[in-house]
Amino acid sequence: MLIVSTTRLTNKLEKQLIDRYPTCQFVFSESIDEAEAYFQDVEVLITYGEDMAEEHIDKAPNLKWIMVISAGVEMMPLKAIEKRDVLLTNAKGIHKIPMAEYAISMLLNYYRSNLAFANAQEDKEWNQKIPTKEISHRTMSIVGAGAIGEELARLAQAFRMKTIAVTNRGGERPYFDEVFDTDHLENALEQSDFVISILPSTSKTHHFYQPHHFKVMKQDAVFLNMGRGDAVEASVLIDALNSGEIEHAILDVTPIEPLPSDHEFWDHQSITLTPHVSGKSVFYLPRALAIFEDNLNEYLNDKKPSVNVINPSRGY
Amino acid sequence: MLIVSTTRLTNKLEKQLIDRYPTCQFVFSESIDEAEAYFQDVEVLITYGEDMAEEHIDKAPNLKWIMVISAGVEMMPLKAIEKRDVLLTNAKGIHKIPMAEYAISMLLNYYRSNLAFANAQEDKEWNQKIPTKEISHRTMSIVGAGAIGEELARLAQAFRMKTIAVTNRGGERPYFDEVFDTDHLENALEQSDFVISILPSTSKTHHFYQPHHFKVMKQDAVFLNMGRGDAVEASVLIDALNSGEIEHAILDVTPIEPLPSDHEFWDHQSITLTPHVSGKSVFYLPRALAIFEDNLNEYLNDKKPSVNVINPSRGY
Repeated sequence: MLIVSTTRLTNKLEKQLIDRYPTCQFVFSESIDEAEAYFQDVEVLITYGEDMAEEHIDKAPNLKWIMVISAGVEMMPLKAIEKRDVLLTNAKGIHKIPMAEYAISMLLNYYRSNLAFANAQEDKEWNQKIPTKEISHRTMSIVGAGAIGEELARLAQAFRMKTIAVTNRGGERPYFDEVFDTDHLENALEQSDFVISILPSTSKTHHFYQPHHFKVMKQDAVFLNMGRGDAVEASVLIDALNSGEIEHAILDVTPIEPLPSDHEFWDHQSITLTPHVSGKSVFYLPRALAIFEDNLNEYLNDKKPSVNVINPSRGY
Repeated sequence: MLIVSTTRLTNKLEKQLIDRYPTCQFVFSESIDEAEAYFQDVEVLITYGEDMAEEHIDKAPNLKWIMVISAGVEMMPLKAIEKRDVLLTNAKGIHKIPMAEYAISMLLNYYRSNLAFANAQEDKEWNQKIPTKEISHRTMSIVGAGAIGEELARLAQAFRMKTIAVTNRGGERPYFDEVFDTDHLENALEQSDFVISILPSTSKTHHFYQPHHFKVMKQDAVFLNMGRGDAVEASVLIDALNSGEIEHAILDVTPIEPLPSDHEFWDHQSITLTPHVSGKSVFYLPRALAIFEDNLNEYLNDKKPSVNVINPSRGY
């Protein structure tokens, strides 16, 4: 059985797979172009999910399963995958620890003026007047509350916050004090100090946040987006900040990535920008491969892989 | 009964005390010099604990109780207080929320390279290669583990850390996975990614950390001091950093405060410095006054105040 990766892993992880699965043949390519030479025979494909087009599916007649070693599948040729009934799995969940840390880190960073203190150190200035605020006892809404949101809510509750989930599933959720469905988004927004967006990019979440949503937020609210950048139009967010409807935005994702250097997000006084790194982790690949191996073990035992199976028509 | 504060509170808090305790007479002074006019009759004194000398005790023959609205009492005339048997209480515990947040914030700030990302934003540079590490699953030792350390350990456990207390009391402690007494400090240090010092300044903690302590720490350990700056000599810490015995130091307290502008701490590449602000909070005074009121209620009922009573000979 031929397993082709369109990306190199670490030497250690590649060797680990080869050693553990002697009945499988592995090819680790530098790119999908290099991998194409093996497409005639490939049965299982490993990809970061940003390099595939419909033509690749067509060129791989024996392809049964694609493992995306990231969480977003919106750049995958989902229609072709569905049509050919290729199994699609992803690495959902491996992002939860770094992304929950990212959100807490950035909120503390902003509330505690870490940047101002760093500047004061550079100026050798002992300045105790720099303002600091506590994130404890605040209210946090998490919009798009899946595995990552649950991990973040768990930490937020440790900081004695009230936690609110906004989700299209509804019902009770661990680590959330309240749960609203998306029809009641405003009930969540109006009481929140922190609004955390972890929405994926789907047809339903494109430009999800409209001007009236920012109008109901608290004037000192912090909006943090670490889901996908198309959840809010740049102009809508800028208007909300410029008119004082909210105080600050922390963006790890942007409508266009990489963000062009002339984009107004870069030097907006009320925006903290990071380059889509919230999910980055030195443990990323080992964790993603652990999910892959769980599924591969099932696959090799003639079972259908069951971890993180994606519905291509739904997109998650 | 006359209650004199050597510092102004907020108007709201002053009014609240006056309204709640109609049988007491309150004086809120700008300074201890201004307050001295009332020393002949003062029974209860409120101070930040940095303005009193032995002569002030001598000038206040009716003084029964001093409430220090901070945690450190090392600048108080402890011998005179003990000799005159004046009750001494402090605001221990009100620092626990901001200080636990400070420690988590600064560790995340360092591990997640927040400063480098801020610089990249300033340069309009979408740089995903800036390294980030996770604080989750690490090991944290807290040296001088009282109320603040316990709050920090609670948060650290939420981040899935292993938590170790180093304390002269020993025994089991909530939120700590292991407890060592100070004789076994090295057993804690050698396994820790984060060493957090919350030691007060006493005769026993002066220059507490010796060169051999840094030698047993991990080479990538982060040492964070938010207790008192005299726990480690500047030269000892600098040597440990320069010789690579530890990776980084985060200092909210320094041997001299404010730190002189020519001190080598300021621009040391491996030191993050903040100007003794870890305990700062907009909720500081209300929380300190709440402790004072609990004690005052007992005092007015002819009971001995019981919250945060300090033993002057011990210093805590």
